[in-house]
Amino acid sequence: MIQVYTGNGKGKTTAALGQAIRAAGAGLKVYICQFLKGKYYCELATLKKLKNIKVEQFGTTCFISKTPTKKDIELAKCGLKAAKKAICAKFYDMVILDEINVALKLKLLKLEDVISLIKNVPQKTELVLTGRNAHPEILKIADLVSEIKDRKHYYKKGIKARRGIEY
Amino acid sequence: MIQVYTGNGKGKTTAALGQAIRAAGAGLKVYICQFLKGKYYCELATLKKLKNIKVEQFGTTCFISKTPTKKDIELAKCGLKAAKKAICAKFYDMVILDEINVALKLKLLKLEDVISLIKNVPQKTELVLTGRNAHPEILKIADLVSEIKDRKHYYKKGIKARRGIEY
Repeated sequence: MIQVYTGNGKGKTTAALGQAIRAAGAGLKVYICQFLKGKYYCELATLKKLKNIKVEQFGTTCFISKTPTKKDIELAKCGLKAAKKAICAKFYDMVILDEINVALKLKLLKLEDVISLIKNVPQKTELVLTGRNAHPEILKIADLVSEIKDRKHYYKKGIKARRGIEY
Repeated sequence: MIQVYTGNGKGKTTAALGQAIRAAGAGLKVYICQFLKGKYYCELATLKKLKNIKVEQFGTTCFISKTPTKKDIELAKCGLKAAKKAICAKFYDMVILDEINVALKLKLLKLEDVISLIKNVPQKTELVLTGRNAHPEILKIADLVSEIKDRKHYYKKGIKARRGIEY
């Protein structure tokens, strides 16, 4: 099945992480490929302890605010290649492509390459895609779409991202 | 801060679990109180391995389909008591009340008791509430509300709940 977590609210990556630890608890093997992320997130410390879960990051430590750099594009392409390898090896039961929707929106990846990857996922592999602004074509081929809507956020009160909560 | 994950889509409990492992990775101590749940979920096997996270369940192994039984009510009350104790001890940095919105909707708990609990949470404690149909009063006092909307679900194709994915 293809699961997509999109929308402008908090909870997309964490929902995928929750899926990962549920799957790992069932003895399933999980590969998490993080696009756009290169900085340290606290969940990495926990995931490192879990032998059924492997994480790789394909992003810089900077936030892409305007035009993506050559390095951003290169890293995203490497991420897609790594994801493809993980899927083709048929070793993993669940593959999570974290923030891939944003990588597509920023045109770091080509839509046809991602669609082709999704269409070649073996039926027994659970694929989880996250990130806001999921492409309509992705939504079309997904089996599950959860849209996480921001109904209220403490950012608006001026609360900044906190260690252990947002990163 | 008070975070609420509600809505009819998949991802509420998993978002809270993801929050828990991020927090644990930052060295924060997490208490997860699960209302309505008494059966084994695969995430429990993973969480058991993480020393910063404690989980307790306060539900039966059955799904409440019609009228809640006396036991359902008793267990939910025990859950609220345990949550209160965990919060008052000031030992935990994050307290997750999983499915508490449903416990309220089913009238297993009194709204005023839950509101009073929330209002007494120390400022340094992150409180996370999950479950569909969150009460408007809960939404009012929350600092963050993410509504997870079901845009598409494989249940509709006849796919049943799967081990490691839904439980």
